[in-house]
Amino acid sequence: MRKPGLSWLLVLVPISILFRVLDQDLWVFLTAAGSIIPLAGSIGRATEQLALHAGPRIGGLLNATFGNVTELIVALFLILDDQVPIVKATITGSILGNLLLVLGLSFLVGGLRHHEQVYNAQAAGVHATSLVLAVIGLFMPALFVLTSGEHGFVQREVVSAVVAAVLITMYVLALIFFFITHEHVFRVPRSDERPEWPARKAVIVLVASVAVVAVESELLVGALKPALHTLGISKFFVGLILVPIVGNAAEHGSAVLMAWRNKVDATLEIAIGSSVQVALFVAPVLVFISLGVGHPMDFVFTTFEVAAVGLATLIVALISLDGRSNWLEGAQLIGAYVIMAVSFFFVRGL
Amino acid sequence: MRKPGLSWLLVLVPISILFRVLDQDLWVFLTAAGSIIPLAGSIGRATEQLALHAGPRIGGLLNATFGNVTELIVALFLILDDQVPIVKATITGSILGNLLLVLGLSFLVGGLRHHEQVYNAQAAGVHATSLVLAVIGLFMPALFVLTSGEHGFVQREVVSAVVAAVLITMYVLALIFFFITHEHVFRVPRSDERPEWPARKAVIVLVASVAVVAVESELLVGALKPALHTLGISKFFVGLILVPIVGNAAEHGSAVLMAWRNKVDATLEIAIGSSVQVALFVAPVLVFISLGVGHPMDFVFTTFEVAAVGLATLIVALISLDGRSNWLEGAQLIGAYVIMAVSFFFVRGL
Amino acid sequence: MRKPGLSWLLVLVPISILFRVLDQDLWVFLTAAGSIIPLAGSIGRATEQLALHAGPRIGGLLNATFGNVTELIVALFLILDDQVPIVKATITGSILGNLLLVLGLSFLVGGLRHHEQVYNAQAAGVHATSLVLAVIGLFMPALFVLTSGEHGFVQREVVSAVVAAVLITMYVLALIFFFITHEHVFRVPRSDERPEWPARKAVIVLVASVAVVAVESELLVGALKPALHTLGISKFFVGLILVPIVGNAAEHGSAVLMAWRNKVDATLEIAIGSSVQVALFVAPVLVFISLGVGHPMDFVFTTFEVAAVGLATLIVALISLDGRSNWLEGAQLIGAYVIMAVSFFFVRGL
Repeated sequence: MRKPGLSWLLVLVPISILFRVLDQDLWVFLTAAGSIIPLAGSIGRATEQLALHAGPRIGGLLNATFGNVTELIVALFLILDDQVPIVKATITGSILGNLLLVLGLSFLVGGLRHHEQVYNAQAAGVHATSLVLAVIGLFMPALFVLTSGEHGFVQREVVSAVVAAVLITMYVLALIFFFITHEHVFRVPRSDERPEWPARKAVIVLVASVAVVAVESELLVGALKPALHTLGISKFFVGLILVPIVGNAAEHGSAVLMAWRNKVDATLEIAIGSSVQVALFVAPVLVFISLGVGHPMDFVFTTFEVAAVGLATLIVALISLDGRSNWLEGAQLIGAYVIMAVSFFFVRGL
Repeated sequence: MRKPGLSWLLVLVPISILFRVLDQDLWVFLTAAGSIIPLAGSIGRATEQLALHAGPRIGGLLNATFGNVTELIVALFLILDDQVPIVKATITGSILGNLLLVLGLSFLVGGLRHHEQVYNAQAAGVHATSLVLAVIGLFMPALFVLTSGEHGFVQREVVSAVVAAVLITMYVLALIFFFITHEHVFRVPRSDERPEWPARKAVIVLVASVAVVAVESELLVGALKPALHTLGISKFFVGLILVPIVGNAAEHGSAVLMAWRNKVDATLEIAIGSSVQVALFVAPVLVFISLGVGHPMDFVFTTFEVAAVGLATLIVALISLDGRSNWLEGAQLIGAYVIMAVSFFFVRGL
Repeated sequence: MRKPGLSWLLVLVPISILFRVLDQDLWVFLTAAGSIIPLAGSIGRATEQLALHAGPRIGGLLNATFGNVTELIVALFLILDDQVPIVKATITGSILGNLLLVLGLSFLVGGLRHHEQVYNAQAAGVHATSLVLAVIGLFMPALFVLTSGEHGFVQREVVSAVVAAVLITMYVLALIFFFITHEHVFRVPRSDERPEWPARKAVIVLVASVAVVAVESELLVGALKPALHTLGISKFFVGLILVPIVGNAAEHGSAVLMAWRNKVDATLEIAIGSSVQVALFVAPVLVFISLGVGHPMDFVFTTFEVAAVGLATLIVALISLDGRSNWLEGAQLIGAYVIMAVSFFFVRGL
């Protein structure tokens, strides 16, 4: 199994710009969305090569980081366009997509080839605890807003900022734990795989892809409203399901590939590690960036989003804490994702 | 310890029919309910005998299946009588009764005789994950209805149908996992117990009991409304607590007996396996059957029901994932059941 | 590391009485609160000495019991002053403080000195299950009140009394399990530490401290309303955060000290054991005492409180079930506490 070649989709980049010139919003939206798939794929491929230069664990971190760079860029353009609820939906969707869809497909594909797969249960445990912290960070402000009618804008922002600061602190502490104080516990045996690209080429592809993703994100966000009006699907669904699937295609591919090759530790680092990064780092950072650019985004998510992330965390913790996986666990995660997706599809007003 | 003889209660079958003729609703209700106990017992006994012919694991499946046949029949008559909220309460109550009351009593009785009991933790883990999937399947539609005021009948039905289809798929996949791809993991050492009945007798008793249960269910459902009016207890409580206790008396007995004989794997197969079957198979199938007979039942349960199943799943997962049980764990499950039952007792309006 | 000397704070006892005479409510409040810290400390020290006379496990129980005696006394005076919502906040805050702050600090401090600490996972599991039972006991009545508008005072009291009775029963059963039927599982190796005080001195200090705590509690409660009015902080926050911190200073110190000395089993007995005792014994007992003194307190907590205890239980269960701890887990518990505290700070109306 090789990763499917998606580079031909890069042809959508000039096409989307052409449609922009022709003012065809629906087609701009579709082609820009489509073009992000191979771009995120290039980012993933370049990261994979860089990771091979950097060693397995730093590599896992690189994979997770640049797997989320696409979402971060799209989120920034959405914030600048005052589409804060969609940004939040994108964050939620990215967490759910990684936890349920990417991890589920990986366990399913890996489990069909290998009877049972084994990975570091302690690393899974640290990630699970980080996710529960994220759930607490999502839950308390949402409940605060739901139960106290009298709060003002300032209180909402203060609660959001403190929660965001705590989550970022926890993210940094977890990195210190993984890479410094308890590094020996998580040390992975050296891979015998050799990089195919020189590090220089990998960096260039990475930078170029990120730049083009920024252009396409701008096109995507600009065409979003008219396109959705034409298509008749809700902004909420786009943020929760479509953007994360498009933006995660790269991680998706890498994680499944790693599971197929029976390197489940790398799969978990990509899928769960990426969710943790979105929840404990990307989302809180957006709270502060959004304040900086004058379009403040608080940390108050909808009940639906909080519940979905909470339930996803629960099932992933239950499945991953024993350090073993099989195809059924993969199917169960995908089943959970489908149930959530269909419920989200019909929600309009959130 | 032998299973208590309840066959003398079969005398209630003709008595209930007599009361029907005399139009005594309250007495019809009580005697029909009472007659279901020995009938469910006969189903259980016949199933046990069939199970001994069929081998331990298929036997466990048979036990669970025919332990739920009573609820399925009662549910069908309730649906035909347009009593959908009680059907849902019965489903919830059956899950809670099996997870908390039956499992609790088994652990308590087994733990008082045997200091600590050991069972297959991996099987318990698969069941726990299936239950969390069921909780997600209960949670998301309920939240969908709670949070979006604008949905119509069609959207509600579509969400219900998709969730039901996912859950049935997951049930079938879990069976494939247990019986085909990972069968060796769960293989139980052959029992030395010999069947006392020939297979033919077991089948005849099974079929006859099911037929009489159908008759009594019809009587029970027909007399329900006037009887409850006279007794002054809520339909919700009857569905949640009384019907499941009456209908589960058989499984109840078998599960406790197995724990007493230190065959805790069989206990779990009956108690947790049965809950999983109700949640992932019986309830979703009722969604489709109810559509077929023109009395559509959606998959939207009350907050109370969703919360109760969620909390029961949590405590059972916590208790069973270590593969060991003792009397305190049994008492704790029963305690949880009592807390839920008393809260349900006073709820009227759901 | 020795426990910090706080005895000089005892000077606040006469000062608080002086302010009472001078009718300076704010200063009465502050000095009475301050004086409880060294008194709770004396109780802790005396208990520690008694514990050394009594052996390690009974000692753990003694520690937990007298760690909660301060809260119990404050709660009684609050009930007599008709401040039931604050009593509930104090109960919630005590559970959260022990589970998150005390345990978190202990794991953090212990983990910074010792690379990884090991403790009895089975004891942690029994405590975790007890906590889930408490969560169910908090959840169901709260949901009952939220979802059924038609209930009356009597129904609320009956549900509360039954839930309280179940929880007390479960507490007693857990004691029987720990100390009688499964005592050998939890037997701790004998400590080589010698008591510094004779048992007689320990008892006298204990009794005297409890008496003075009662006086100061009376002063504290009497000055509460006017002082909070002057300070501009909510009663809810005082109950949830301030009273438990002041009242738990003793346990706090002991638990952290034990972790520093690598006696994590003792730490867990103090921190988690104490939370269990508050949830399953102190709170339910207050339901009955409050009925007796004619100021009935039901067992219906706010959504905020139920959610916070539920989430705290989840993260503690996740962290403690593997029987190992490290500094990161400590930091994560503290992070969860900070998120909750900041959310509570702005809640007024509950």
